[in-house]
Amino acid sequence: MAFCRGSKWHKIQFVIAVATILIFVFGLKERKVNIFSKLDGYGREQGRSLSSLNYDYRNENHVWYDKNIPLIWIGGVPRSGTTLARAMLDAHPAIRCGEETRVIPRVLGIHGQMANSNLEMTRLQEAKITSDILDGALGAYILSIIAHHGEPAPRLCNKDPFALKHIKKLSQIFPNSKFILMIRDGRATVHSIITRKVTIRGFNTKSWDLALKDWNRAIKTIYDQCVAVGNKQCLPVHYEQLVLHPKSEMERILNFLNVPWNDSVLHHEKSIGKPGGVSLSRKELSTDQVNKPLNKDALWKWVDHIPQNTRENIGKIAPMLSVLGYDITSKRPTYEKDK
Amino acid sequence: MAFCRGSKWHKIQFVIAVATILIFVFGLKERKVNIFSKLDGYGREQGRSLSSLNYDYRNENHVWYDKNIPLIWIGGVPRSGTTLARAMLDAHPAIRCGEETRVIPRVLGIHGQMANSNLEMTRLQEAKITSDILDGALGAYILSIIAHHGEPAPRLCNKDPFALKHIKKLSQIFPNSKFILMIRDGRATVHSIITRKVTIRGFNTKSWDLALKDWNRAIKTIYDQCVAVGNKQCLPVHYEQLVLHPKSEMERILNFLNVPWNDSVLHHEKSIGKPGGVSLSRKELSTDQVNKPLNKDALWKWVDHIPQNTRENIGKIAPMLSVLGYDITSKRPTYEKDK
Repeated sequence: MAFCRGSKWHKIQFVIAVATILIFVFGLKERKVNIFSKLDGYGREQGRSLSSLNYDYRNENHVWYDKNIPLIWIGGVPRSGTTLARAMLDAHPAIRCGEETRVIPRVLGIHGQMANSNLEMTRLQEAKITSDILDGALGAYILSIIAHHGEPAPRLCNKDPFALKHIKKLSQIFPNSKFILMIRDGRATVHSIITRKVTIRGFNTKSWDLALKDWNRAIKTIYDQCVAVGNKQCLPVHYEQLVLHPKSEMERILNFLNVPWNDSVLHHEKSIGKPGGVSLSRKELSTDQVNKPLNKDALWKWVDHIPQNTRENIGKIAPMLSVLGYDITSKRPTYEKDK
Repeated sequence: MAFCRGSKWHKIQFVIAVATILIFVFGLKERKVNIFSKLDGYGREQGRSLSSLNYDYRNENHVWYDKNIPLIWIGGVPRSGTTLARAMLDAHPAIRCGEETRVIPRVLGIHGQMANSNLEMTRLQEAKITSDILDGALGAYILSIIAHHGEPAPRLCNKDPFALKHIKKLSQIFPNSKFILMIRDGRATVHSIITRKVTIRGFNTKSWDLALKDWNRAIKTIYDQCVAVGNKQCLPVHYEQLVLHPKSEMERILNFLNVPWNDSVLHHEKSIGKPGGVSLSRKELSTDQVNKPLNKDALWKWVDHIPQNTRENIGKIAPMLSVLGYDITSKRPTYEKDK
């Protein structure tokens, strides 16, 4: 053998070189295992650790989700098509949203309350709990919930409607976040809330006028933040457009998300319950609606139910309707010129 | 040179061997850096990452805090000497507690509320948010807060009094936790709450009888859990004994924690504001008290202030006093036979 021609010393030298290469390769391998087992450490059950759920879809190696992953956030006022949007995205093989986690907006909410209280923030500063430390802990919490409550996927997504009340905070914690803000004609949203008797924190469900004011306040809070983070991070999507023109709207959404086109997003109902497809909760109100294909008729259900007095004063009650491009002069808007 | 004697080929072979060794050494080094920067990923500012705060005190290498670290939890009903106990432990060079974080009991609280609601738990199960996932996220949140809000230390400790309402949950999330339950004569605690007008969630601060009932309910909740996890994990410490017999009590506490004795725990006031010592918040009510050395006289301040009617019915109003070994027959208990 060419390598070993010569003295005994050269043979030894060759063995040392091979051994060093072997140590290098196995050393790395062992190191990797140690790292994973150490980081397994947040009360996870065996076989469902953070590590086992994280993978790099390009080469199927395990990688870590961290604050820089391109999370997708879908939200808006409840009853605005947020479940439809997430079901359509969930049907895409590269995206996993899953059911509403319920806990993410709640934990974001108590942090928002603290941030709004000067007294509380002074106390926290004195206790060396800086905004930075709070954001870090919040990020760890949110990422742990999102990563574990469904299958792994190249693009993870969350749909808790009111999480989008915290767009600014979320874009600080996860700078590569993309937000899809679902916007729907407030008259249709309120009609849905009242007829289906939906309990929404901060919403009056007995009076059209009060419910419309609540809608106006909620969508303004969210829309203002969407505008503030800019159109590279936040995309407003009108529910009516998604229903009337699903192909062009989904193209626009996937383009915004930098996700390649896949026809399955136009037939979300076929992916329900399938691996990598759409997982639904029997306890979510919208489940019985997204079980079916897109339904255009539902867009105008509210038309014959809005009280005359409300209709006549709608511009004052819910000024956001006009801001968002909805026609408040016609009794039955076509939704064709909205954008 | 001996290595290079022989053909040109052998010289090349030698260079390859040296290069491989270099790659091995530097490869590991670079890998380490990569790992830390990846895990840096929860919105941490530069230079205060989780990695830079974690170290193995035996050899000063960086290691990860995980769910298996032996956390120390100090708590009980507020105004029961919890700040004194944590200041004494904070004076120990191997222990860091720090100020009340305020957020840990709050986030534990909303998880406790959810766990107590069957409706909510059903919804979460349907959304694939299992108890296990909640515990994992909660653990990540808590550990991130505790690890970052003070200096690194061999033994990390938390003192948020009402976190101990969740002893069982915390011992599930962090199985190597040790709990120090501070117990104080409820009559003294209530006197302190009323005279200092302390706002405590769930406490009436206007009436002795109602405040004592609130004290009774709170200490029962905590004490029952302390008993449930057993005496290897939870140590009840009477405030009066800590003040009257600091040396033997601190020996008992450090022994329970498996921490070697250090005289500094008997002079916590000398460690205030020093590196590795006791960090205090100007916004915590107890700060002006733990600033000074131990004060025995404060134990009996309540004696002349308890209403006669309350004193006569104390056994019915606050049955936990007797359960915990307090003398309810004498007007001025000696606190010498309590244990």
